[in-house]
Amino acid sequence: MKVAIIGGGAVGLLIAAYISKAKMEPIIYTRREEQALALNEQGLKMYKNGIAENFAIKALPISKGLSGEEEIVIVTVKQYDVKKVIDFLSNSQITKPILFLQNGMGHLTYLSELSSPSIYVGIVEHGVLRYSDTCIAHTGEGQIKVAPFKEKTASFDRFVKELDAIGFRTIMEENWYPVLVKKLIVNAVINPLTALYKVKNGALLTNQSFYNNMIAIFQEVTCAVELKDVSKVWDEVVAICKKTSENFSSMYKDIENNRPTEIDSILGYLLAEGKKNSMNMPLTSFLYNSIKGMENKREGEGNG
Amino acid sequence: MKVAIIGGGAVGLLIAAYISKAKMEPIIYTRREEQALALNEQGLKMYKNGIAENFAIKALPISKGLSGEEEIVIVTVKQYDVKKVIDFLSNSQITKPILFLQNGMGHLTYLSELSSPSIYVGIVEHGVLRYSDTCIAHTGEGQIKVAPFKEKTASFDRFVKELDAIGFRTIMEENWYPVLVKKLIVNAVINPLTALYKVKNGALLTNQSFYNNMIAIFQEVTCAVELKDVSKVWDEVVAICKKTSENFSSMYKDIENNRPTEIDSILGYLLAEGKKNSMNMPLTSFLYNSIKGMENKREGEGNG
Repeated sequence: MKVAIIGGGAVGLLIAAYISKAKMEPIIYTRREEQALALNEQGLKMYKNGIAENFAIKALPISKGLSGEEEIVIVTVKQYDVKKVIDFLSNSQITKPILFLQNGMGHLTYLSELSSPSIYVGIVEHGVLRYSDTCIAHTGEGQIKVAPFKEKTASFDRFVKELDAIGFRTIMEENWYPVLVKKLIVNAVINPLTALYKVKNGALLTNQSFYNNMIAIFQEVTCAVELKDVSKVWDEVVAICKKTSENFSSMYKDIENNRPTEIDSILGYLLAEGKKNSMNMPLTSFLYNSIKGMENKREGEGNG
Repeated sequence: MKVAIIGGGAVGLLIAAYISKAKMEPIIYTRREEQALALNEQGLKMYKNGIAENFAIKALPISKGLSGEEEIVIVTVKQYDVKKVIDFLSNSQITKPILFLQNGMGHLTYLSELSSPSIYVGIVEHGVLRYSDTCIAHTGEGQIKVAPFKEKTASFDRFVKELDAIGFRTIMEENWYPVLVKKLIVNAVINPLTALYKVKNGALLTNQSFYNNMIAIFQEVTCAVELKDVSKVWDEVVAICKKTSENFSSMYKDIENNRPTEIDSILGYLLAEGKKNSMNMPLTSFLYNSIKGMENKREGEGNG
């Protein structure tokens, strides 16, 4: 089975490697032509527990369009690039099953623009480091959870089973909302605070003052969404902070590297949800502005 | 007239210099004996507009008690050291007029412990840089505002006039509350945000996202105090941000240098005031915890 992966970032490369391992054929579509060239020439190298594995990989620049051979399309670009990819898929009238693997929920509003009858959404709970265009490390064993957003397809079901069968844990859930909303809350609580304080995830637990703020944010954001077992989600937030205590969150790293963050799809989405119910969300709004301001910090400093 | 100055920090040394200039006799009481020795030996050097002036200064370590010669006592230590100084003055049964020059209002609760019948409070609106134990620069021309907190004294009135007469603008106000509360609001809005975002004061105006948060904080904290002309105080906050746009706030510098901040006397005081009226102050509480957490960041990271 040929599988298109749109996005040559950490998650895209990780999934491509395991699709290869499962004897399916990944085709990576990259934004930059040079990454496609490098992947075709050098293959993809993945480290795990200090051992490197090499995969011969087909890669193409997305600018030339999809090859048309693929049975499934997986979109792994960051949320702030999803709109562009959706426009591309919609213009290309792709009708294959498409899986979206993004943080946050901001991209869901655009999914109706797609012609494909079968759409899935999912989340990635793996630790993965991207060293270069062709080299990653799988640093934390986790799982992928997917769920149908619009109509199921047999081929996608088979794909999930084949991936799961080789030990790359991939779970099919019935309802997409709880899958995405839990991850959203986890991201909403951990990412902005760690980016703001410039601390590792674990500091939110060990620093009592930061912990107090984590609780306050959690309370505010969980009011804005439908969540059945709130205290269970809190336990999950704490568990993830513990498990990743020595890691810097993606938002922290984005800010440190002057990259755009995924704040719009995380807190931006929650603010929009809250607004629908005329909710007052002072902390979420403050945090949203804080991260937005930090993204534009250089501007502010330049004129200041 | 001999004037005791308790505290050899930037403000203490600045006032000592101008008291000298006004032909009065400052006696600086320092926490560290070595600073008193250095001041006695080398005198106090003050730069202004690139020109240095030297003042022969008497200095003593506070541990040996006040000399008893002074007619007025001025307390210039940071707010987190005021309690210790008040205990000392109370134990020493000082009955001279005392002037307190601190940021925030947290220290006011302790003033009733003093035996002195005459107490003044005031604020310092000067830019001053402390280079060493014996050298400062007067970088921003401003003013000192004082007001009686408990009973006036003729000698203190005279002192204020003599200081003002040499061009070191010193104004006597009738009511202490508006003097202190305006400075408190300015500090509450500018200091924690600049420390949190690690930006110069001007960035709060030029960065639209930070500006939005500045407005939100201003609205919340001004609800917790009695303030007659709220919009005038807002104009003052903006004017100070503009005037000091290239400066880093004292709280920013305290955090950067791993020193304790004055957050307790600023946001801590405002939270306590709000609590009296059962006010809900989510942003103030969040900011308070953020700064407290940043003060203890190393701890948090160490265990994280």
